[in-house]
Amino acid sequence: MEYLAGQYDVVVIGAGHAGIEAALAAARLGCKTAVFTINMDAVGNCPCNPSIGGTAKGHLVREIDALGGEMGKTADQCLLQMRMLNRGKGPAVHSLRAQIDRRKYSEVMKHKLELQENLDLRQGEITEIRRLGDDRWQAVTRMNAVFEAKAVIVATGTYLGGRIYVGEVSYESGPDGTFPAAFLGKSLKELGLRLRRFKTGTPARVLKSSIDFSGLQEQPGEDPVIPFSYDTAEPLKNKAVCHISWTNEKTKQIILENIHRSPLYGGKIEGVGPRYCPSLEDKIVRFADKERHQLFIEPCGENTEEMYLQGMSSSLPEEVQLQFYHSIKGLEHCLVMRCAYAIEYDCVDPLQMAATLEFMDYPGLYGAGQFNGSSGYEEAAAQGLVAGMNAALKIKGREQVVLDRASSYIGTLIDDLVTKGVEDPYRMMTSRSEYRLVLRQDNADERLTPLGREIGLISDSRWNRFVEKQELKRKELNRLKKTSLPPTKELNEILVSRETSPVETGIRLLELLKRPQVDYACLAPVDTTRPDLDPNIFEQVEVEIKYEGYIRRQKSQIDEMRRLEGKRLPKELDYQEIHGISSEAQEKLNRVRPGNIGQASRISGVSPADISVLLIWLSQNGKAVK
Amino acid sequence: MEYLAGQYDVVVIGAGHAGIEAALAAARLGCKTAVFTINMDAVGNCPCNPSIGGTAKGHLVREIDALGGEMGKTADQCLLQMRMLNRGKGPAVHSLRAQIDRRKYSEVMKHKLELQENLDLRQGEITEIRRLGDDRWQAVTRMNAVFEAKAVIVATGTYLGGRIYVGEVSYESGPDGTFPAAFLGKSLKELGLRLRRFKTGTPARVLKSSIDFSGLQEQPGEDPVIPFSYDTAEPLKNKAVCHISWTNEKTKQIILENIHRSPLYGGKIEGVGPRYCPSLEDKIVRFADKERHQLFIEPCGENTEEMYLQGMSSSLPEEVQLQFYHSIKGLEHCLVMRCAYAIEYDCVDPLQMAATLEFMDYPGLYGAGQFNGSSGYEEAAAQGLVAGMNAALKIKGREQVVLDRASSYIGTLIDDLVTKGVEDPYRMMTSRSEYRLVLRQDNADERLTPLGREIGLISDSRWNRFVEKQELKRKELNRLKKTSLPPTKELNEILVSRETSPVETGIRLLELLKRPQVDYACLAPVDTTRPDLDPNIFEQVEVEIKYEGYIRRQKSQIDEMRRLEGKRLPKELDYQEIHGISSEAQEKLNRVRPGNIGQASRISGVSPADISVLLIWLSQNGKAVK
Repeated sequence: MEYLAGQYDVVVIGAGHAGIEAALAAARLGCKTAVFTINMDAVGNCPCNPSIGGTAKGHLVREIDALGGEMGKTADQCLLQMRMLNRGKGPAVHSLRAQIDRRKYSEVMKHKLELQENLDLRQGEITEIRRLGDDRWQAVTRMNAVFEAKAVIVATGTYLGGRIYVGEVSYESGPDGTFPAAFLGKSLKELGLRLRRFKTGTPARVLKSSIDFSGLQEQPGEDPVIPFSYDTAEPLKNKAVCHISWTNEKTKQIILENIHRSPLYGGKIEGVGPRYCPSLEDKIVRFADKERHQLFIEPCGENTEEMYLQGMSSSLPEEVQLQFYHSIKGLEHCLVMRCAYAIEYDCVDPLQMAATLEFMDYPGLYGAGQFNGSSGYEEAAAQGLVAGMNAALKIKGREQVVLDRASSYIGTLIDDLVTKGVEDPYRMMTSRSEYRLVLRQDNADERLTPLGREIGLISDSRWNRFVEKQELKRKELNRLKKTSLPPTKELNEILVSRETSPVETGIRLLELLKRPQVDYACLAPVDTTRPDLDPNIFEQVEVEIKYEGYIRRQKSQIDEMRRLEGKRLPKELDYQEIHGISSEAQEKLNRVRPGNIGQASRISGVSPADISVLLIWLSQNGKAVK
Repeated sequence: MEYLAGQYDVVVIGAGHAGIEAALAAARLGCKTAVFTINMDAVGNCPCNPSIGGTAKGHLVREIDALGGEMGKTADQCLLQMRMLNRGKGPAVHSLRAQIDRRKYSEVMKHKLELQENLDLRQGEITEIRRLGDDRWQAVTRMNAVFEAKAVIVATGTYLGGRIYVGEVSYESGPDGTFPAAFLGKSLKELGLRLRRFKTGTPARVLKSSIDFSGLQEQPGEDPVIPFSYDTAEPLKNKAVCHISWTNEKTKQIILENIHRSPLYGGKIEGVGPRYCPSLEDKIVRFADKERHQLFIEPCGENTEEMYLQGMSSSLPEEVQLQFYHSIKGLEHCLVMRCAYAIEYDCVDPLQMAATLEFMDYPGLYGAGQFNGSSGYEEAAAQGLVAGMNAALKIKGREQVVLDRASSYIGTLIDDLVTKGVEDPYRMMTSRSEYRLVLRQDNADERLTPLGREIGLISDSRWNRFVEKQELKRKELNRLKKTSLPPTKELNEILVSRETSPVETGIRLLELLKRPQVDYACLAPVDTTRPDLDPNIFEQVEVEIKYEGYIRRQKSQIDEMRRLEGKRLPKELDYQEIHGISSEAQEKLNRVRPGNIGQASRISGVSPADISVLLIWLSQNGKAVK
């Protein structure tokens, strides 16, 4: 008893971190958009850690924000604690990480969806999608409602065919006790999509008052709080602390004695888990010589005593979990409120997608988030934003946007997914970028806000603030170039205290800041003409001055890369027909169908010689290629 | 692979309104208590209306509060709007009703459970309970954890064997998209409990901005706000309004044309629905001559645009629902965020329980809430409180408490359940009480707080405030008796304006307040010695003065009732062996096993003649009866 329930430009399946950004972007670009959630109370849920950001992930959040996305703003609104990670290392790897109030995050995000113009938030399980033609789709709910759309964005997270494992126990389920999407997987397979099975896991939640914090190291937030969002104006406060503990020999022993009861080691789980976010038993088996593993005890919210045990995800039986928690300092008598579990789910082979996140053979069908084979809220949100804006741009007759690797971690993430594919849930890391001195968290706005503005996701007021900030930065750089400090006793005392040589003649501020030992803060007493600016401007200016040589070198690499990216390859090219390319490269190229020479050169198995052949082919056929 | 996971005094199954009060009461009385929830994010959920209280239900909330329960306090904390219903009618039916923030209510209640000493809140589905002996039980979770307990309280709400129906679509589910308790029902049946199948339903939630409020009647809250709880000290504010609309001829026509698609009318649902909370299609079929039905549009929270359509519950197909919503003024273009559904669930025949809410043949096993055949959050919470405190009292070797019909609506509710049984989900109404002039919402503390104190659920500070209040009330009554007003012009002008005769000599305040036309407020200008008291004291005093005769008469009926309640009947009595009782009465008495003559006399089918025989039997055997 189906019925036609509505017509939309864009239908988004799933209202998690990917679906939210996708739906907001599409609606804000003027597309009539519906976002479907299996459970209206689980919109924007954080089923794993109650935190946003972290190494490289913090960069993604800043980039999402710079492009007009919501994740950073909402994290700021729900902040419990903020820290800048890796301060001891170079500026490329400085990353913001926030502990957030999980329930509030969900409430705030849901409310934003409700208030967004052009956007309908609907509870409903999509059981089937149907292709009526290019850019003509139908999505059907369990209640037999049929929705027509020009684009469908699949952002099903771990719901698609979700199955939970705890030791010998397993059952169909979405994350956090929600219903799984039990039917859609079959429909996607029938459409011809290649699906695979991945798994992920989450640790236990324990009661705060049952933890003995007395011997544990405290990890407070940083003051003043640096917000994620360029829009967050009011000062934020840290409201909570985390704590650190360690596993020990006994923990290890308990796990090894019971490893046969793990559904993974016992062969029950076929799904592949995230390499860089392993379960505790994985860590103990894979790093057998490591004596101990760190864990963080993190608050789940302002109005709850539930604490999250970061680093302790497990799919061992509950009984075994209790034993090993109780072996850990501080957790000797902890009450487990929710036990750890692994969840297995269906996701797609992302090689089927272009860097726009549109499926190459399914015009109008997009994928985002864990469905594309990634892990992490931030990775999901980043893809959601890209899928949502591209679906909208296409519908509006505009050119879709590809973020290249030099523009952002978002671009790097997507290029990795669609060029290299994934064998396990993909996690963003700074080491994945070859341009990381350029792709810093401090300059995300400079890198991306002009693009966000061009696309239409940056409001006038935000844009004006950005332009003003850029002008202030330009002026400050100019001031540093022009301002000379005299060789006063005060200046030289500062320099000596910093273990760098004193000066005998006047010296420009720029030259002083180039010295590794000198920073903005230490020059404050002698830099009397310094204006009162946003600390982010000082941060950007300082990094650009200090690392000028490195950055220049990276920028010339970027120019070369972009030259190759500009050499577009047609999607429908059959590489078997191009002679001189190795057969492995032919096969891989036909599988990935790269959008340009640059992408082609990053495919493993495609050699520089193959690229030369391709370049020759292109110069011969280039005029025919759009 | 079962394992012994813990030992408790009391295990509570379910953390809804019943389970919460049960667990808190047991823990506060010093019992080591665990409360299990299938979904940690759904603790204290309000799956139906976002409101607490209402006619007779408001009385229950006040009574729960007077006994030291949490519902009233939490409703006050999460208040969106408060109204005193039935102000135009007598004081017996005045009832408080609050619109509350549904998400916040859940968060606050969960946090209270987390913070409660002696109480462990645990996520886990109880799949089986086992009787090891009298007051020796085991509860087993889906994760194979075995918990031992002296008492088990079943408070499974609509989760037990839950199944959702929307037209032709149906599937196993708990309320609001949670997992059902799929296994426990079988275990309860195997224990020998008589289960039955009830159903209930909930209306759709629609997006606020899609409603046209312009032609709808607004229903604001009342200022100043009267709180539910005797503990709420700070003044509360109304934060939202409701609106009223009506169904019409077209709505009726749409429903009648599609009635065959209702799973109820189509014969798919076997469960019995709540007579006094019918679905819209029930109302239209049962009251076929009624031209229109009222509906209230109520906010679901402060930070959400979801609106609840009170009075519109339905199990018709989503397609039909949309048609009839759109036929209603204001809802012509409404966006349905969640559709209405019916839910069918297992509950128990409450005749198997004593008025303590302990199962008569299963010492240590208690039931509470919808599991006992009631409907409504308030009815559930009331039973939870009684079951929890009785389980604890028994474990502590103290006598269990039976609230009689004259003490409270709580007592009336439980007596109705365990004496008369239920054929459909039981809803509290003021008409169910024969003592309703005594059982007012304004005097719940006077009726129950001394008992709550005796049981141990009332803190010292609360008790001191109560005693002080009673003293102030006594003084005020005394002042009214002793204070005479002179026959001034001012007084007589007041009296004449109230259409009652002027006075020529001095008159006592008490006499003036006895006049129906005169109230406290109007006497303010001439009552110069009036102290500044809690408005609730004036309310109580005024009602007691005005209705003194009626109240006295009801109190003498209560004395008579209590005389009969004092004549206890042994639970193990076989009424077949008492000659002179009709065979119908023998059968009913054996089924209900009343605790005393009073309860016996209220069993339908037991005649005054049967009671006489029983009284004679008792006088002959009374000494043997404890």
